[in-house]
Amino acid sequence: MNNFVYHVPTKVYFGENQLCHLGEELKKYGKKVLLTYGGGSIKKSGLYDAVMAEMKGAGMEVFELSGIEPNPRVDSVRKGAQMCKEHGIDVLLAVGGGSTLDATKWMAAGACVDHDVWDFFSKWSPVEKALPVITVLTLSATGSEMDCGGVISNPETKDKLGRMVAPLLPKVSFLDPTLTYSVGKYQTACGAADMFSHILEAYFTTEKDLYMLDTFMEGMMRTIVKYTPVALEKPDDYEARANLMWTSSWAINGFVAGGKRHAWSCHPMEHELSAIYDITHGLGLAIVTPRWMRYCLDESTVDKFVQFGVNVFGIDATLPPFEIAEKGIQALENFFFQTIGLDDTFTKIGIGREHFAVMAKKACNNKGGVIKGLKTLTPADVEKIFEMCL
Amino acid sequence: MNNFVYHVPTKVYFGENQLCHLGEELKKYGKKVLLTYGGGSIKKSGLYDAVMAEMKGAGMEVFELSGIEPNPRVDSVRKGAQMCKEHGIDVLLAVGGGSTLDATKWMAAGACVDHDVWDFFSKWSPVEKALPVITVLTLSATGSEMDCGGVISNPETKDKLGRMVAPLLPKVSFLDPTLTYSVGKYQTACGAADMFSHILEAYFTTEKDLYMLDTFMEGMMRTIVKYTPVALEKPDDYEARANLMWTSSWAINGFVAGGKRHAWSCHPMEHELSAIYDITHGLGLAIVTPRWMRYCLDESTVDKFVQFGVNVFGIDATLPPFEIAEKGIQALENFFFQTIGLDDTFTKIGIGREHFAVMAKKACNNKGGVIKGLKTLTPADVEKIFEMCL
Repeated sequence: MNNFVYHVPTKVYFGENQLCHLGEELKKYGKKVLLTYGGGSIKKSGLYDAVMAEMKGAGMEVFELSGIEPNPRVDSVRKGAQMCKEHGIDVLLAVGGGSTLDATKWMAAGACVDHDVWDFFSKWSPVEKALPVITVLTLSATGSEMDCGGVISNPETKDKLGRMVAPLLPKVSFLDPTLTYSVGKYQTACGAADMFSHILEAYFTTEKDLYMLDTFMEGMMRTIVKYTPVALEKPDDYEARANLMWTSSWAINGFVAGGKRHAWSCHPMEHELSAIYDITHGLGLAIVTPRWMRYCLDESTVDKFVQFGVNVFGIDATLPPFEIAEKGIQALENFFFQTIGLDDTFTKIGIGREHFAVMAKKACNNKGGVIKGLKTLTPADVEKIFEMCL
Repeated sequence: MNNFVYHVPTKVYFGENQLCHLGEELKKYGKKVLLTYGGGSIKKSGLYDAVMAEMKGAGMEVFELSGIEPNPRVDSVRKGAQMCKEHGIDVLLAVGGGSTLDATKWMAAGACVDHDVWDFFSKWSPVEKALPVITVLTLSATGSEMDCGGVISNPETKDKLGRMVAPLLPKVSFLDPTLTYSVGKYQTACGAADMFSHILEAYFTTEKDLYMLDTFMEGMMRTIVKYTPVALEKPDDYEARANLMWTSSWAINGFVAGGKRHAWSCHPMEHELSAIYDITHGLGLAIVTPRWMRYCLDESTVDKFVQFGVNVFGIDATLPPFEIAEKGIQALENFFFQTIGLDDTFTKIGIGREHFAVMAKKACNNKGGVIKGLKTLTPADVEKIFEMCL
């Protein structure tokens, strides 16, 4: 078991009508706020007005940057960082889903350096500090509201890259499950697949770690399996939305991974898909993940698959190990592709094998040549997994 | 489901040999440190020397207060607060178990006020701030290393009282499982009972809360059941000690309770026992808890007992509900009194019924007249539960 440091000082207001604390929290960090959001759905829902009222009430001077896209682009980040410098912004307020939050976190870092923000990814430039970020979450998926990471796309270089660095951790996040009532079926399902994948990336490892943390991860996976169908059926089910929302945060804030040092596998593969095809992250993960699991299943990993099958999907523990493992993978496929209705192949979403070789190489190169996860994956391995997804 | 605020900014260094970061962390908070500890076992183990070396290396000026007792007394807190004022202490370093940590946290608060520290309990004086506290934990039990509470005894008034207030949260805690290798069987068992009780106090409620949090609590209870016997059998089993240590923190840092507002039941009852008989907190909890559970079991609560029995102790879910409930309670008794070998009655530890009436009344009075937990308990109810413990 490896040592680790746990430090997640984000303050979370969880529940309905907690937004009344937004003004008092913003004020602590200064006077000038940059409000960031996406395509404008927050105007339709009334959330924009509520947030504005809070900021005005707190006497904040508000600047705005809207139009942050899904798979957020480096150009948006550049624009935000520039606005921060130009107007002497004190604090950023991101209202939206993971894309808006990720982009805003990198704006906050970009505001503190002289170089181009893409250098954070292309040159691995240090991130010593960032302006404070406060978030109001409208989609349960990425966990960006309580982690120190952010993923940015660069259409010019066809890269989609992420980093985790402490200064990006939001100071305060508002998690109001009712704000996700209006999230449609497809995005709800993709969000569920995204969080499921965050947990699996940490869970499936041969590194020994705390049993206690495995029980937490299994509990979160059961939570997703239990409540996603409820949220799809009844979008305003508070219980379902609340469970999914808090799970999205804890799936990836570093807690459940403990001291594990292995690389994530499905995320780097999926990032290459999104970078070229601009598909929804969670959908790509749903298609890739079960194939990756099947590819990694062998004598050296089967025990973990047995644990997964029994503790997450209730597969009969008395069956032979490989049978339990296969049934567990099938149960996950059934959940992704039947229960919550996501497409199950690349072919269905218009992805062919034309870029497999390039994507496989890039996915591995971004991790230093090979992906050192549950199984070490070379570009050839990644290509084979992509083939399984067709 | 109630709203809640989650905010646990304590930085935790988890693992072996993490103490090398102690100096750099202390320095952040100033130059003058008050080192607090208990009976001197840290001198025998070499921990005292290691801590001293770190402090000297960081150029700290060190003051010392030793002899903090189990069920720490208000006089120790007074002495510590006084030393802080006298020497202009910047930061407190508590090395020990929950008693040392609790006392130190209240010294840190006492250092910031002019009134007597007991006023925090007798007059509910506000706790606006406290000096920063850093902890090095040597016993897995109370969770004081990552929560904002502390319990203090006053032998004169025969009170044992606790409060949770944000300024008491430690800034940094060092959790090195190897430091608990030397904890004896009895204290290991009592620590396990203490954390088990922390979880049960939050778990057993009729308030609706997040299913996800229930899965976490069940996972932690299974962790305690799995690893306490291992630690008793093989005191230097890293895996067992590490799982117990991290569980002790998460059992009570506020996370698993979510937005639950019900009062704890067994802790106020046990505090009256410790206040008069100075018994080990965890032992008192082990004796009281199963009786309290049996006392509260009825039609309105049985569902939660079924969930407990099935998910924590693997009782057959197809049995009738009350049978599952009873088997769950029996399994807990078996764990406390057989597996980990704690005494099972008041009689065995020298407690008779002579103070039952007074203790029952005080336990309820401290909670405003009745204890509003799983079942609302009047003094008469508490007396009956005490009778069941004889």
